[in-house]
Amino acid sequence: MTTPQVPQPAAENVILVLSGKGGVGKSTVSTSLSLALAMGGGSSKAPSSSVGILDIDLTGPSVPRILQGWVPVQVPLPKKGDGEKQGSLGCMSIGFLLKDKGDAVIWRGPKKTAMIRQFLQDVDWGKEKLDYLIVDTPPGTGDEHIALVENLREGWNVTGAVLVTTPQDVSIADVRKELSFCNKVGIKVLGIVENMSGYVCPHCAECTNLFSKGGGEALAKEHNLPFLGYIPIDPSLVSMIESSVPVEDGSEGDNTVGGYVVGFPKSGVYDVFQEVTSKIVDTINNQNAAVSSK
Amino acid sequence: MTTPQVPQPAAENVILVLSGKGGVGKSTVSTSLSLALAMGGGSSKAPSSSVGILDIDLTGPSVPRILQGWVPVQVPLPKKGDGEKQGSLGCMSIGFLLKDKGDAVIWRGPKKTAMIRQFLQDVDWGKEKLDYLIVDTPPGTGDEHIALVENLREGWNVTGAVLVTTPQDVSIADVRKELSFCNKVGIKVLGIVENMSGYVCPHCAECTNLFSKGGGEALAKEHNLPFLGYIPIDPSLVSMIESSVPVEDGSEGDNTVGGYVVGFPKSGVYDVFQEVTSKIVDTINNQNAAVSSK
Repeated sequence: MTTPQVPQPAAENVILVLSGKGGVGKSTVSTSLSLALAMGGGSSKAPSSSVGILDIDLTGPSVPRILQGWVPVQVPLPKKGDGEKQGSLGCMSIGFLLKDKGDAVIWRGPKKTAMIRQFLQDVDWGKEKLDYLIVDTPPGTGDEHIALVENLREGWNVTGAVLVTTPQDVSIADVRKELSFCNKVGIKVLGIVENMSGYVCPHCAECTNLFSKGGGEALAKEHNLPFLGYIPIDPSLVSMIESSVPVEDGSEGDNTVGGYVVGFPKSGVYDVFQEVTSKIVDTINNQNAAVSSK
Repeated sequence: MTTPQVPQPAAENVILVLSGKGGVGKSTVSTSLSLALAMGGGSSKAPSSSVGILDIDLTGPSVPRILQGWVPVQVPLPKKGDGEKQGSLGCMSIGFLLKDKGDAVIWRGPKKTAMIRQFLQDVDWGKEKLDYLIVDTPPGTGDEHIALVENLREGWNVTGAVLVTTPQDVSIADVRKELSFCNKVGIKVLGIVENMSGYVCPHCAECTNLFSKGGGEALAKEHNLPFLGYIPIDPSLVSMIESSVPVEDGSEGDNTVGGYVVGFPKSGVYDVFQEVTSKIVDTINNQNAAVSSK
């Protein structure tokens, strides 16, 4: 008799990107965080890492559109200079599995649960073990979240969750629910990111707080959680995400990727994400140091 | 032996407000549409109606926050002049049933399905039959949507669905999924609303297309559907939604409601919603005329 083989976790660290409300920029934050980790901090201390993005938003997958690759799993990254470690970025999403990109996935819970289990167990990320798996989740706290947490209990190292909010009360209120979810299922909160915080008018360069400002930081203080940063609205980012460009990564075939992969280091949000990422990496390093010194 | 009593539908017309993506303003559109119907067009041809808003977003209910009533079911409306028909607005949401507003609802599908069935069957809307029931839905096409459609099959008159999108590709792509959902379950699409379309800078009054513009209208054309209107970003609307004011409705007790209920007729989006609503009402009247002439 053989015992069924338990699949090994695909990554050293798993980071969940959560938000109660939809449309607050979870997928943009997931992708930017993944790019920052995969590309490394350049001159800064963070080295390039092998990163996977798993998009478990089954009814509204956005990550393939942001990366514009539409082909799993490897996303071509711009080549690093000599002597620098080349990071890697993989991406998996139900978007890749639909016959037509416009198809609706109308599934009840059990089918969703099975899909997420398969995503965690069966995806070939091209590495024996990724440094980071970033999980982009759907809004709310539904079957997808329950399935994710249950499957990750089987030997994975869940580093924690990054909560994304926009500054309005209505979004903050939903993030409170997400905090309550993290508490109930025992997931550490790595911090809160406030997205769409202020808008710089391209005509007069005045910054307006379109959706007010500071709600995310206030919430972080209230719950004694790290506040990771304010991300402004950047219309150039929107146009970058909606365009695609060829990438020189030395491989053969179709090397067109979303303009965001190439444009990210020059974008207005790059510096913010360097800071957000280094705060997260510091927290993880401290956690790991605390565990190994026990 | 008695046969179990089949509950009567609570409204003459049911309008679903759908969008594939979260955060595109479904709840704001649902509430504005409900207010426009309940308050009537004033001097215009649309009379005040009795309206209910049912918020079936179980994990992220936003309608109570926009109305700021936090008490089901009746929302106090400003009093009409003599001789004008007074409309009414009721609201039901899981937000009213939570012990703490920050509580997370972590339910699998079957519990959600039961809740939605109860919402449709058991809510006392204060009228024998509402003129309109507006159903605000969660993003995507999940258990809530399946449960809603299944329950509405039992004798309800589903007038159709209003699809809400923001102008970006990533949102349009998700609305395509919602169109595919409507086709699969046989729900008529009343039209597409493009929200967050352009932003007027309060400093220089220049309009910027923050998230680009026209995607919603192009999609409507492509599928030969009515385009209902562009709704601009209005920061005063955000602050209205986050404030509350007392209302003179002649009744006793706590008559504080969200500033939006009172401020809506003076807000920058009022005219747009008058147009959106009259287009929808025209479609409904034509539908009903076609049915009764058969």
